[in-house]
Amino acid sequence: MHQGKFSRVIIDRFEKGEDVLECLNKLVGDNHISSGSFIGIGSVQRAEIGFFVGNGKYSIVTFNGHLEVSSCVGNVASKEGTPFVHAHICLADRQGKAFGGHLMQGCIVDATFEVLVHEFEGLDLRRKLDSTTGLFLLDT
Amino acid sequence: MHQGKFSRVIIDRFEKGEDVLECLNKLVGDNHISSGSFIGIGSVQRAEIGFFVGNGKYSIVTFNGHLEVSSCVGNVASKEGTPFVHAHICLADRQGKAFGGHLMQGCIVDATFEVLVHEFEGLDLRRKLDSTTGLFLLDT
Amino acid sequence: MHQGKFSRVIIDRFEKGEDVLECLNKLVGDNHISSGSFIGIGSVQRAEIGFFVGNGKYSIVTFNGHLEVSSCVGNVASKEGTPFVHAHICLADRQGKAFGGHLMQGCIVDATFEVLVHEFEGLDLRRKLDSTTGLFLLDT
Repeated sequence: MHQGKFSRVIIDRFEKGEDVLECLNKLVGDNHISSGSFIGIGSVQRAEIGFFVGNGKYSIVTFNGHLEVSSCVGNVASKEGTPFVHAHICLADRQGKAFGGHLMQGCIVDATFEVLVHEFEGLDLRRKLDSTTGLFLLDT
Repeated sequence: MHQGKFSRVIIDRFEKGEDVLECLNKLVGDNHISSGSFIGIGSVQRAEIGFFVGNGKYSIVTFNGHLEVSSCVGNVASKEGTPFVHAHICLADRQGKAFGGHLMQGCIVDATFEVLVHEFEGLDLRRKLDSTTGLFLLDT
Repeated sequence: MHQGKFSRVIIDRFEKGEDVLECLNKLVGDNHISSGSFIGIGSVQRAEIGFFVGNGKYSIVTFNGHLEVSSCVGNVASKEGTPFVHAHICLADRQGKAFGGHLMQGCIVDATFEVLVHEFEGLDLRRKLDSTTGLFLLDT
């Protein structure tokens, strides 16, 4: 368990055609945020979401066409010295049907994507390779 | 990109029969919050959710009957001088089947709706009409 | 309505085989957090989610097998003198199909579950039995 305080809040908007995960990683990298959390909403024109299948691997589902992003939440921690975003996303189609999973590269912004990043101070979140799952888990 | 700090936290509960979006807008208006974010959970007895179809328009899906609100997240920014809520919602029916989209007027509280608003200070979020999408996008 | 400020941020990870709701209640209890909110993501190997049916009762849907946790959001308030977690969860299966509802006991962590708790200060959230719904609603 770690404890700290909130530091900065950063608000940004990603543009049509940008990759959500790449933009999140760039935003936290550019702002030197190595411990934090975020929440985003918006829409995508294409999505790839992951479902963990073991040994550090994800099964991928791909969606083409406009989807609303009902929520995209996650955290930021250092992974091998670099700020690293771990996020899950919930999407919805025209009938309102919802889909969700691990945010992968390949989720491309459509109309807009609005994100709020909460930076933490007084703690140092890190990820460490876990041999059982093959994932870089939070080192708590 | 904007950066600031957290200011107040406001917690409120909306009552059976109240409209979620109207209550959110009233809550931030009454408390003069023009830059912030929020998270809510609860249940609704009726829902209208939107799917963006271009030119500032949404296709609407209507649900009647009790639904759990798995999440309702969004932000607050000034739109033409008035605090304006942008929110997305994720709902679930009795079988657990999830639905999501843009929060529209017409989502009516059932048992309860609990909301937390995070006010920001040191930044000034505004929305500006974007001619391509017809939406008031965050001016970042 | 209540207002206050953010105090501590607590980050924790729950381990494979642990019960999400029990761990959340233990985390806030051990840290004496009686007013706060939280957000979690991760995965479960089994889930029970509730749908409110009146008179303080929930209809339960049970899922077996790995599910991603797209979001798990909620708040902490005192209920009869003890910190009490109220949370809703959104899950997703291998095809990305999403499910949601009220977080019940019986959601068991699979690979990992990462949670961020935001403590509030300057306010005192309490729950009070509401005779109409049979629920302990936030006393606002």
